[in-house]
Amino acid sequence: MAVNIKPLADRVIVAPAAAEEKTKSGIIIPDTAKEKPQRGEIVAVGEGKMSDQGVLVKPQLKVGDQVLYGKYAGTEISIEGTDYLIMKESDIFAVL
Amino acid sequence: MAVNIKPLADRVIVAPAAAEEKTKSGIIIPDTAKEKPQRGEIVAVGEGKMSDQGVLVKPQLKVGDQVLYGKYAGTEISIEGTDYLIMKESDIFAVL
Amino acid sequence: MAVNIKPLADRVIVAPAAAEEKTKSGIIIPDTAKEKPQRGEIVAVGEGKMSDQGVLVKPQLKVGDQVLYGKYAGTEISIEGTDYLIMKESDIFAVL
Amino acid sequence: MAVNIKPLADRVIVAPAAAEEKTKSGIIIPDTAKEKPQRGEIVAVGEGKMSDQGVLVKPQLKVGDQVLYGKYAGTEISIEGTDYLIMKESDIFAVL
Amino acid sequence: MAVNIKPLADRVIVAPAAAEEKTKSGIIIPDTAKEKPQRGEIVAVGEGKMSDQGVLVKPQLKVGDQVLYGKYAGTEISIEGTDYLIMKESDIFAVL
Amino acid sequence: MAVNIKPLADRVIVAPAAAEEKTKSGIIIPDTAKEKPQRGEIVAVGEGKMSDQGVLVKPQLKVGDQVLYGKYAGTEISIEGTDYLIMKESDIFAVL
Amino acid sequence: MAVNIKPLADRVIVAPAAAEEKTKSGIIIPDTAKEKPQRGEIVAVGEGKMSDQGVLVKPQLKVGDQVLYGKYAGTEISIEGTDYLIMKESDIFAVL
Repeated sequence: MAVNIKPLADRVIVAPAAAEEKTKSGIIIPDTAKEKPQRGEIVAVGEGKMSDQGVLVKPQLKVGDQVLYGKYAGTEISIEGTDYLIMKESDIFAVL
Repeated sequence: MAVNIKPLADRVIVAPAAAEEKTKSGIIIPDTAKEKPQRGEIVAVGEGKMSDQGVLVKPQLKVGDQVLYGKYAGTEISIEGTDYLIMKESDIFAVL
Repeated sequence: MAVNIKPLADRVIVAPAAAEEKTKSGIIIPDTAKEKPQRGEIVAVGEGKMSDQGVLVKPQLKVGDQVLYGKYAGTEISIEGTDYLIMKESDIFAVL
Repeated sequence: MAVNIKPLADRVIVAPAAAEEKTKSGIIIPDTAKEKPQRGEIVAVGEGKMSDQGVLVKPQLKVGDQVLYGKYAGTEISIEGTDYLIMKESDIFAVL
Repeated sequence: MAVNIKPLADRVIVAPAAAEEKTKSGIIIPDTAKEKPQRGEIVAVGEGKMSDQGVLVKPQLKVGDQVLYGKYAGTEISIEGTDYLIMKESDIFAVL
Repeated sequence: MAVNIKPLADRVIVAPAAAEEKTKSGIIIPDTAKEKPQRGEIVAVGEGKMSDQGVLVKPQLKVGDQVLYGKYAGTEISIEGTDYLIMKESDIFAVL
Repeated sequence: MAVNIKPLADRVIVAPAAAEEKTKSGIIIPDTAKEKPQRGEIVAVGEGKMSDQGVLVKPQLKVGDQVLYGKYAGTEISIEGTDYLIMKESDIFAVL
């Protein structure tokens, strides 16, 4: 699963998992988060952020990574009828 | 489409897309954003920001890029009767 | 004890100790913290944070470390029915 | 048009354009800004800011540049009966 | 006096002095601070903080140092029935 | 005009001009600032600020400079019956 | 006049001058500050602050310096019955 959009700098695009879904490693989203899941799949990754020192800080994530992210992270966008979230890589907590 | 204005440092000028428009990759702006679209085209790009380390951090965007940007990003300006937004490159989320 | 999740950057995953538990070195959690213990075990560690200078700042913690952490640190996640906390290494005060 | 004052560091002095004026490239200040125009001409430029790294970050603007600037940018000063604004170069959005 | 706990990074553990105690150099805690003394002894020191530049900034304090610290500095922990404070080295004002 | 006091680091001492005074270049302080003039003369300059990089960032001002400064800048001190302001060089806007 | 206490990092200890005192260079503390003088003598100086770059930024002050400092700067400590203030060097405005 990938989308035809290129996030800028240190941003990624996430396809949120369906709320009832359960991961291979058995992660269940806590009750208080059921309406808006904190798990998803990376569908696009930026090229990294150019720092003030002139260093391109490359992303550690790649397309296809299953990730956990903060409940209020990112901005919603809709691509071909599907909802995605675009957020900074630093909003991603962990890779499953 | 380009304008005869040179943004300073890490700023860009964006021509906002018409709210009803639909992109080639099928992006539809979510309902809550219809009055003020979050999609547009880059019409001018600054030369980059000179950092405290004396490094010119060059922009990653170029004129003609179709972009997504934050709903409240930028300052409105009017050039020859057309409305544009001038904002920092970091306010741009992604390139379509 | 380890989990099949990889925290990103400078984050770690902590398995909180049971509130009544008492450590080998005899640490007792103060009364005001009994409901939500400040002691736990590191079950996963990120690879470190890439700084703006292009330096990978490696974590000082490793899986299995018994740690003390701030009372309100981290975000709760549930893995295979067990509750964990994911937090930044800087939220960890000390290793027992 | 230039003034006999030397701004310090990364500051510039701007002569605000008259509110009804219209630029060569056809820029019209939006209605909501008519009382206090956002367009002007650079009449003095500082030598640049000395950074903590010992780098003199030189200004990108020069005397005579027609510029757009933030509506609430700068501090008013009066030189020989004429009103000017003194502001940081980073308050300037673009060169016309 | 030392404890079997290793503070992380730039943290230290302090054993607060009894409120009525008087130091060799004759320091008396001011009246307004009698309930919670600002003097104590360092009982554990972290290895230092790894900076973004990849430099390990080593602590200037060592175990056994008699120190003065800010009245509201640190977090209380209890080790084998004794109360200690864990704080950042920068919360320590002076060595007696 | 100079004073026998050495400001520390990046600070300067300013002798505020009398409110009714008018400069050679014809600057008149705007009406709203008459009670507390924004013009003055530099009477002492610090040796510069030592940055975290170990660079001494030298001042750009010298004793005798006629300057404009922010209306609420600095702290008042009285030397031999005369009132002065001590402020950071970055509070100075321009040299006349 | 010196004290047997070593301030940490970029801190200094100041012996505040008596409120009615008048300095050699004729400085008189302004009326509004009479209860808590802003003048004093440096009685102890730290070794300097270790920056993130691994540079020891040495203090510019030495024991015996007569200084001016901010009215609300520092923390009061009492050594052998005498009151002192411990503060950061950056809280010191000038040397008399």
